[in-house]
Amino acid sequence: MANQTQSLIDSLRSGDTRALARAISTVENRTPGWSDLLKAVFPHTGRARVLGLTGAPGAGKSTLVDQLARSFRKDHRTLGIIAVDPSSPYTGGAILGDRIRMQEHFSDPGIYIRSMATRGSLGGLARTTADVATVLDAAGRDLIMIETVGVGQDEIDIVRLADVTVVILVPGMGDDVQTIKAGIMEIADIFVINKSDREGAEHVEKEIRALQSLAARRDGWTPPIIKTVASQSMGIENLSGAISDYEAYLKKENLALNKRAENWQERLVEMLRETLLDKARVQLGNGNLARLAAEVAEHKRDPYTLVEEIAAGARS
Amino acid sequence: MANQTQSLIDSLRSGDTRALARAISTVENRTPGWSDLLKAVFPHTGRARVLGLTGAPGAGKSTLVDQLARSFRKDHRTLGIIAVDPSSPYTGGAILGDRIRMQEHFSDPGIYIRSMATRGSLGGLARTTADVATVLDAAGRDLIMIETVGVGQDEIDIVRLADVTVVILVPGMGDDVQTIKAGIMEIADIFVINKSDREGAEHVEKEIRALQSLAARRDGWTPPIIKTVASQSMGIENLSGAISDYEAYLKKENLALNKRAENWQERLVEMLRETLLDKARVQLGNGNLARLAAEVAEHKRDPYTLVEEIAAGARS
Repeated sequence: MANQTQSLIDSLRSGDTRALARAISTVENRTPGWSDLLKAVFPHTGRARVLGLTGAPGAGKSTLVDQLARSFRKDHRTLGIIAVDPSSPYTGGAILGDRIRMQEHFSDPGIYIRSMATRGSLGGLARTTADVATVLDAAGRDLIMIETVGVGQDEIDIVRLADVTVVILVPGMGDDVQTIKAGIMEIADIFVINKSDREGAEHVEKEIRALQSLAARRDGWTPPIIKTVASQSMGIENLSGAISDYEAYLKKENLALNKRAENWQERLVEMLRETLLDKARVQLGNGNLARLAAEVAEHKRDPYTLVEEIAAGARS
Repeated sequence: MANQTQSLIDSLRSGDTRALARAISTVENRTPGWSDLLKAVFPHTGRARVLGLTGAPGAGKSTLVDQLARSFRKDHRTLGIIAVDPSSPYTGGAILGDRIRMQEHFSDPGIYIRSMATRGSLGGLARTTADVATVLDAAGRDLIMIETVGVGQDEIDIVRLADVTVVILVPGMGDDVQTIKAGIMEIADIFVINKSDREGAEHVEKEIRALQSLAARRDGWTPPIIKTVASQSMGIENLSGAISDYEAYLKKENLALNKRAENWQERLVEMLRETLLDKARVQLGNGNLARLAAEVAEHKRDPYTLVEEIAAGARS
């Protein structure tokens, strides 16, 4: 490990926020040395709890995360917040939300907020988010909250890597708008019905209960349904209570390590995919790729055989 | 190539719909022989035009695709429609929409509709969709329409592989709901403002124009904005006219092959990623993966070094 990396890690672990920002950028942008950095911080990780929150646009995620952050800060727990929103700069999304929250929390070094609004064209956003969470963990943050817009597979892949996953629904958005991707109901450890003072909250609760009656979870946990009105700070204590309950349950049943091991299976595969693809791309070379793609487009070459040949070459 | 594959391809090319369905299932489910099948059909492809349509839930995509299909059928062009919607079975999505349309078009063998509502946990939905389109192309379909919910990166990756990409917006959904992923504005060859009889259509048009004024496209094309009310069959002829215009432009400027070559670059990388990951998984073995993941979860092993070791092993 380079001295530079060691010095960055020392600053990071001493609570230096600028070092934290630099380490996160290194990992997020895959700046040279990112891999060594992650290897070096890994022994200092595993202590933080990771909380994933997801919900459709308009579900009030940011407000809820804000309120939860306030609640956790009362207990003097330090926080890292990762807001993942690959929305267009056009409509704002993470950036705008972050600015607003940033201003409020700016004076509190116990809250570190990072927005991740982009992803590389071939990158795995889930992997990068997990790596950023690893850095926050090494920096000594007690709780890491990852907030995503739960409409894409990417976002589902991100929050399912958390220790505790919260799925946020709202009443009265109609089936068409509240379309929930396959798998999102299955990943919820806790359901939140936010804006629950609106008409239809009972209906949403009934729908969740109906779904829950279809199949029991392997781990025996029945995800509770918490009603909140985040904009009025209502139900926040119930929610943080439910989070503690679930963590206690995992601990009591010795499931916590199990769950992390399952998560690591996903992460390892994702890491392997990225690593192998990097290797293949280097081997292939970009100029080469353009030429081969042109040959395929002109039907001079069959792409299926071509890829097998490249893959075989990458192994020799 | 096995005799079985050749016989399937003969039936497929003769217009046998059941052979088409079987070939698509083979490719979609990665049933043994899928790769040989794709290699064998490839020489018979390249003739079909591929049209990608994407928009947020509630934008009226299915109705628009329906109306376009009717319009193209008047010209006796045969169609393949792929509806990609990884929504929950809970809220319906592709399945329900398909059923309804299926009933209407059931008696017309010139329209073949396939819904793809799931994806493998590690699969590339974009790749599978492209492979299914390849099979439809080989089966002699003149036009292939791929319809996706434009809210996830997956869906963007799918439609950007089309020859012509249509992005569907609607007025009055508000910024929060109409959140458009980064990159989706850039992939539009044609914009549609559907439900344009609603208040706010002018506003949406102005916003698109404002975005267009920021940067010219490399290929010199300015995506037209077509207003439709699909439920009343309004604007459909304008839209199919705009599609023809863009195809004519690509042809006139000799850009069609260029665009396909660029698309193939993306597809080749995606194919390479899938192939390499398959190899790595076989090499690793699932039991092994579980054990290694557990060791990482217990902090007995650093995952970053581990993945490098596996990747190096996969190459030797």
